[in-house]
Amino acid sequence: MSSVETHAPFFLDCDTGIDDALALAYLLGAGANLVGIGSVSGNTDALQGARNTLDLLAMAGRPDIPVALGLHDPQAGTYAGGAPHVHGYNGIGEVQLPESGLELARESAAELLVRLARENPGTLGVIAIGPLSNIAAALRLAPELPSLVREITIMGGSALAPGNVTAAAEANIHNDPEAAAEVLAADWEIVLVPLDATMCHVLEEPDLEALLGSEQGAVRAVGAMLGHYFNFYLGVFGRRCSAMHDPLAAAIALGRVELLSAPYARVVVDTTQGPGRGQTICDLRGLYKGSPKPAGSRCRVVLDADPGAMAEIMRGALRAGAPGRIPLA
Amino acid sequence: MSSVETHAPFFLDCDTGIDDALALAYLLGAGANLVGIGSVSGNTDALQGARNTLDLLAMAGRPDIPVALGLHDPQAGTYAGGAPHVHGYNGIGEVQLPESGLELARESAAELLVRLARENPGTLGVIAIGPLSNIAAALRLAPELPSLVREITIMGGSALAPGNVTAAAEANIHNDPEAAAEVLAADWEIVLVPLDATMCHVLEEPDLEALLGSEQGAVRAVGAMLGHYFNFYLGVFGRRCSAMHDPLAAAIALGRVELLSAPYARVVVDTTQGPGRGQTICDLRGLYKGSPKPAGSRCRVVLDADPGAMAEIMRGALRAGAPGRIPLA
Repeated sequence: MSSVETHAPFFLDCDTGIDDALALAYLLGAGANLVGIGSVSGNTDALQGARNTLDLLAMAGRPDIPVALGLHDPQAGTYAGGAPHVHGYNGIGEVQLPESGLELARESAAELLVRLARENPGTLGVIAIGPLSNIAAALRLAPELPSLVREITIMGGSALAPGNVTAAAEANIHNDPEAAAEVLAADWEIVLVPLDATMCHVLEEPDLEALLGSEQGAVRAVGAMLGHYFNFYLGVFGRRCSAMHDPLAAAIALGRVELLSAPYARVVVDTTQGPGRGQTICDLRGLYKGSPKPAGSRCRVVLDADPGAMAEIMRGALRAGAPGRIPLA
Repeated sequence: MSSVETHAPFFLDCDTGIDDALALAYLLGAGANLVGIGSVSGNTDALQGARNTLDLLAMAGRPDIPVALGLHDPQAGTYAGGAPHVHGYNGIGEVQLPESGLELARESAAELLVRLARENPGTLGVIAIGPLSNIAAALRLAPELPSLVREITIMGGSALAPGNVTAAAEANIHNDPEAAAEVLAADWEIVLVPLDATMCHVLEEPDLEALLGSEQGAVRAVGAMLGHYFNFYLGVFGRRCSAMHDPLAAAIALGRVELLSAPYARVVVDTTQGPGRGQTICDLRGLYKGSPKPAGSRCRVVLDADPGAMAEIMRGALRAGAPGRIPLA
């Protein structure tokens, strides 16, 4: 299995969010070189998500990573509120993290992303695990952004799998379809990690117990959040467990998960007001003859990933907050 | 495997069309009690499709089955022409059938369907393998139609599979999305047979040779048409073969094919002008916990059917035009 170089810098855009918190713990524990984080409204509002992120970074001993506030509202309309039944009213399952007092960066999330891309031309990886409002804003701020970014990994959408917030649409894309349309239409290397992949990577009770049994406060806190998340997924899977949307995208971005099926495809976002609003229409008609790469396509759609991803995520998450960085293997 | 009673009457609505022709041959050979046929624009225009159907019925020794002309245009806009690259300019791969001189019924397809439903209350099965224009017209003509029809089996749409005319939409539904929306919203027992199922049932070269080697002219004619169809599918599957869309729906309607996965689901048709126009949005979010039947849902979506369907279709088709009806087993 290939993995990106040890010191490749990453910008994380998130809406923390329970599975965002696990993704962050994973990235920290896996030794990813996180050079900046943006916050966007989604699972919770952008400010609450930023606070959750800062407090978690403090617990994990990483107060040095800048966190910038991103957009509160999607391009069309206003933020409709989070998903308390999924992520709790504070975005992290009502878990009360110690208040870190850490301050937000003075830049906006889009400004921070653009600055980091300019400082790391051709090497910065972007991991976008919330609605794509900030990323679209960064594209408007710096139309050359796609030429600066090495690759953007997006958790969002569904290709052939059902949606989650509607029959056809997944939450991150549905929260800001217009932004997603811009980001997916831009000319950069995209790895889209949709529900097709993420719904097949599930954290189970023993994993939860392992997190709750950690000596690290940050890890235990994430475990406590996941208890809330498990209750929601009881209604989806018929048992207490949770899909690993954001952590899977993070592990894929680090090159730590083999992609078993990830065809290149043209992807269009439905921005109508119809029943398909917010869905990612992935043109996978080539599947029947082995998915030849469509001319000009730079977007891979992850349909299937190594089941070992779950173990990789757990290994990383359990190291979050442990003293000393664990370099990438 | 269950099958419907021997004498259950069926109304077939079609746009003949190469796979329609095979479905018709199958139904005749399988001894289905076809009490009437409607023609609609789709693979070819409604009049050409009706002529193809009449000429094929004559060849198969069944000039007694009434064929009624249906709608030329979809509800929105005008018929955009057929799919010559798929079905040929005459709808049947340029095969020239002997002109039967058989006349069309004096009723419209919708009127014929309504009359037959009233004459066979509670027993008539409808097999719709073209755009749903005629069926929607019949619903407007007789709003009580759903209470008279035993079951309607529809070849159309895609649930989790890619579309065929667009990334998201299948041809029958895309040709008249507004009609499809009415038909799928009506309160009757629906069995939707989408591309998810039909793309997995493929006629191969040996099947084609068997049809071409028949002593029956109607069967050989269908074989000749399929040669054209095979060429189109070379570009889809990477080999000469053909998906069995319409025949699979016909065999399912007769109860001759076991459904391996056919959850009840709410189905909505995208009638926007966006990129998802004409797609069938099937709410399959329940799949993760075993697809409980949604309250009030009367629509089953066939995701997977017994691979033996192909053999059943070939057995039936090879009997078309043979002297003496073969009763249903």
